[in-house]
Amino acid sequence: MSHNNQLQENKKFDDKSIRARMLISCPDKAGIVAAVSQFLYEQGANIVQSDQYTMDPEGGMFFMRIEFDLQELEQRLQSLQEDFNRIADRFSMRWSIFRAARRKRIAIFVSKEDHCLTELLWQWQAGDLDAEISMVISNHDDMRSLVESFGIPYHHVPVTADTKAEAEQKQRELTSGKVDLIVLARYMQIVSPKFIEQYHNRIINIHHSFLPAFVGGKPYQQAYNRGVKLIGATAHYVTEELDGGPIIEQDIQRVTHRDDVTELKRIGRHIERIVLARAVKWHVEDRMLVYQNKTVAFV
Amino acid sequence: MSHNNQLQENKKFDDKSIRARMLISCPDKAGIVAAVSQFLYEQGANIVQSDQYTMDPEGGMFFMRIEFDLQELEQRLQSLQEDFNRIADRFSMRWSIFRAARRKRIAIFVSKEDHCLTELLWQWQAGDLDAEISMVISNHDDMRSLVESFGIPYHHVPVTADTKAEAEQKQRELTSGKVDLIVLARYMQIVSPKFIEQYHNRIINIHHSFLPAFVGGKPYQQAYNRGVKLIGATAHYVTEELDGGPIIEQDIQRVTHRDDVTELKRIGRHIERIVLARAVKWHVEDRMLVYQNKTVAFV
Amino acid sequence: MSHNNQLQENKKFDDKSIRARMLISCPDKAGIVAAVSQFLYEQGANIVQSDQYTMDPEGGMFFMRIEFDLQELEQRLQSLQEDFNRIADRFSMRWSIFRAARRKRIAIFVSKEDHCLTELLWQWQAGDLDAEISMVISNHDDMRSLVESFGIPYHHVPVTADTKAEAEQKQRELTSGKVDLIVLARYMQIVSPKFIEQYHNRIINIHHSFLPAFVGGKPYQQAYNRGVKLIGATAHYVTEELDGGPIIEQDIQRVTHRDDVTELKRIGRHIERIVLARAVKWHVEDRMLVYQNKTVAFV
Amino acid sequence: MSHNNQLQENKKFDDKSIRARMLISCPDKAGIVAAVSQFLYEQGANIVQSDQYTMDPEGGMFFMRIEFDLQELEQRLQSLQEDFNRIADRFSMRWSIFRAARRKRIAIFVSKEDHCLTELLWQWQAGDLDAEISMVISNHDDMRSLVESFGIPYHHVPVTADTKAEAEQKQRELTSGKVDLIVLARYMQIVSPKFIEQYHNRIINIHHSFLPAFVGGKPYQQAYNRGVKLIGATAHYVTEELDGGPIIEQDIQRVTHRDDVTELKRIGRHIERIVLARAVKWHVEDRMLVYQNKTVAFV
Repeated sequence: MSHNNQLQENKKFDDKSIRARMLISCPDKAGIVAAVSQFLYEQGANIVQSDQYTMDPEGGMFFMRIEFDLQELEQRLQSLQEDFNRIADRFSMRWSIFRAARRKRIAIFVSKEDHCLTELLWQWQAGDLDAEISMVISNHDDMRSLVESFGIPYHHVPVTADTKAEAEQKQRELTSGKVDLIVLARYMQIVSPKFIEQYHNRIINIHHSFLPAFVGGKPYQQAYNRGVKLIGATAHYVTEELDGGPIIEQDIQRVTHRDDVTELKRIGRHIERIVLARAVKWHVEDRMLVYQNKTVAFV
Repeated sequence: MSHNNQLQENKKFDDKSIRARMLISCPDKAGIVAAVSQFLYEQGANIVQSDQYTMDPEGGMFFMRIEFDLQELEQRLQSLQEDFNRIADRFSMRWSIFRAARRKRIAIFVSKEDHCLTELLWQWQAGDLDAEISMVISNHDDMRSLVESFGIPYHHVPVTADTKAEAEQKQRELTSGKVDLIVLARYMQIVSPKFIEQYHNRIINIHHSFLPAFVGGKPYQQAYNRGVKLIGATAHYVTEELDGGPIIEQDIQRVTHRDDVTELKRIGRHIERIVLARAVKWHVEDRMLVYQNKTVAFV
Repeated sequence: MSHNNQLQENKKFDDKSIRARMLISCPDKAGIVAAVSQFLYEQGANIVQSDQYTMDPEGGMFFMRIEFDLQELEQRLQSLQEDFNRIADRFSMRWSIFRAARRKRIAIFVSKEDHCLTELLWQWQAGDLDAEISMVISNHDDMRSLVESFGIPYHHVPVTADTKAEAEQKQRELTSGKVDLIVLARYMQIVSPKFIEQYHNRIINIHHSFLPAFVGGKPYQQAYNRGVKLIGATAHYVTEELDGGPIIEQDIQRVTHRDDVTELKRIGRHIERIVLARAVKWHVEDRMLVYQNKTVAFV
Repeated sequence: MSHNNQLQENKKFDDKSIRARMLISCPDKAGIVAAVSQFLYEQGANIVQSDQYTMDPEGGMFFMRIEFDLQELEQRLQSLQEDFNRIADRFSMRWSIFRAARRKRIAIFVSKEDHCLTELLWQWQAGDLDAEISMVISNHDDMRSLVESFGIPYHHVPVTADTKAEAEQKQRELTSGKVDLIVLARYMQIVSPKFIEQYHNRIINIHHSFLPAFVGGKPYQQAYNRGVKLIGATAHYVTEELDGGPIIEQDIQRVTHRDDVTELKRIGRHIERIVLARAVKWHVEDRMLVYQNKTVAFV
């Protein structure tokens, strides 16, 4: 594969060096938009994109995403954040600012199925996934050469019933402080509550069904048995409840009585990779807010 | 509404008077297609459309749907059926022949929501639903004038906890021997096992979710609570298991976090009416076979 | 049909009496959002929804749609508009404010095909189309009883080669000052440049193809001849160029080699009515801005 | 990439060694299905799948695709074909029989965009594309390492205004007698009428628009200028008329006013690769018949 990725990235870096994204959630109240936009204006920022959502005009929650350009962003970010605290306090905001140029670092976890991993690598290489793929961790060694051909470190961390705790300790060492997002790209091992807590709303899983239908194992077999006319896939943040976390994205494809389980899996692979890639893209572009086990998706 | 429906029908009747549809299911075996097509050829029939499906080439079930044209069909049908018994016996077939000109008679059951009923009436009037709507039965009187404006009899059969058995008795009297298909177009009452048995695989219900997700009551509220990104509707044959019968058709529409329960219902109404209308259309065109709680849909 | 529409409307009216929608377009510049939101805050308004779009952060056009709630809106609207002129001048804005409670008045033009008209009437009756259908004008008398059964005035204005000018004069008299939007719901007559100019960006047409494919007459025949695998429909604002105006909405449906022209028309009718209904809904909810023969659709 | 492809293939080869596919087209007439199925039955074949299509029951064309299993297929194929000539003559059939185990050999032509090529390689490696990719030919050398990492020969055949004839001569030498299908996977050079004739209905091109909209160059720019709300891609057989050949498959994706040309291209790449991969899959599975510049697609 042509490794001219770096070049493209550098160009993009230049364009994006002054771009920031702000995510805000707080109880709704008059004056929020005015206060935030006035603040940004006074700082010299130009708002490029803005989305907002009010759950209920009477006393609901308010969510906002703003993209803005600001000269010398990197140098000025800290003081801008300190200044913004006044407004944040006034409206009891939870908020964050992200520099677009500071690309999120991803660790992809994978087992034996390679389609989701391949799609992510490919979109990354094409410049469609604006992130850094820092490493791939697998409980098998099968995909080492594929991954390393992209210049990405590959860590084989075998998992057995006996070595579970040890394996997770190893995973934690590899990722701690080095990645911003974990993507379970058809990783067939359970992740511990402790790990989930450490990466709260920062672990994305792809489940191969249209949740909440067919929770748990063998969803395509379940779908075949039930005789559904559409099959789907769901990307969600991982929580302690199996397949129960906030849904980021879902999609489906039409099937017929002619499609046996093997064919459902084949069709499903195409849905899974597209759905997971969209979810990861939206996350690294700071488009997702989580509230009460649901996502607000500014896409 | 323009009542020139009858005229159109007469014209169609002429065209379809020689058209028949045959549905066959039997254990798979070499020679079925040859035997059936040879038989039809010898009878002077011309095969216009043919679909088949083999569950498993090694010892599975075989399903077939054939449309053919035969001169003087009405007069010759009985002897053709008698002659076909030889072949049917040889392959242990379950089979039926339907004349296209003999339109299926439908009773639509409805409660207070009118969108599914309206869509069926409208497609029927446009000539898209090639059936006879024999009557509408409702536990409310709200839609009488709408239904009667189409020249269709309307029966108000109130249902209360106390009068359940009596009401069903009344429904049975109204429909017995007079209809071929019951369509539950958002009919919010439970139908008894006895009634289901009488109309085995001839009662179609529309459930306002993407089954098997959100079985039971208030599916849009359930969908809202779970934060799904697509909502759907499912048309299925009614069996004793609630929302558990063979699925005929499903479809979905994309939703976002902005859509509250009211909006989900609004969007859902459009999916429901389309999905139900498709399912009824396919049934009356003899395109559905049921096998082991799943449908073979030759569409 | 149940005529309890009025009741529903009154209830909605109450809820919406304080809701306004503002549409703005101007050259992009820092400070627009701050100025507008600060202005609304000082007026005591609460921003409920806000969308914006910048064509190009470097010197492009800026478009914005804001929904806000303001107590005593009706009484205060004029002074609010006068006060806003300061800001509008500063940024060279084109802008309008609409009260949600002041429902847009629609004249539907129709010929002999009733599916688009029926869908609009139905969505209107279900409360999904928040507008007033003031009249239906047709060059035929066929749909009078349908339309009048909804309590809507029906005007039969025949059009022949000789009476074209006269007919349009009649149409102009019927609509002038009485309607805000003209919907051509499969109206098969050409509308004059003068009429188009009078209702600039306020005439919506449904074209029965996926524009710009199959401009002009008999698009389903054209689609059949070309052997396309998807057919579509397009709702657009009418301009002098045939089928060339700004596109509001498009959708498609899959077809196969089995679908002859009659079947394409049948499938197409379902796409047409959905696409047109969406376009009309978005227009009456003040979601459309037109710029250089394209729409900015805040949907 | 894991090169266990060969192993999978061998397994599939075994299963498919007795499977054949037959494509037939002829003027419609009573008795065709009976004759063909009786013939196959007498030969000892078991029909596994059968599709047929009659353009017009009164004197139209008849098209058929049959999959059947026959023991010792490879040895018996020639005599079976000789015997079938009797029937073919009787009905004036054009027909072919293909062994499923004899995988079609593909030459992929590509220029600088790699997404279509990558998708084909990937689906091939996953076992979803049941063909042999015999070679990749490109007018650039960029994708050599990618292609060779799959173990596939890569031929760099530069094309300039001056060397056009010479280049095509080289391409002809490389492919002649060695490939069954040419796939233009975003190959940006014109193919000569002579070459098209040699591979009549065996060259598949992907055009990056929803044909017949936006024929010719820069379709995404054209789509942007027109302000369409959906963009598409079209896979078609190449004929002498630019972008005018029989359409195999099309699909679309929703876009908005926010999507500039770069974004349209990004979205379009996903449609293109899916549409092209489907078309190639259907072709190599002998599912396509061409008649009068249209395809009959038994999919």
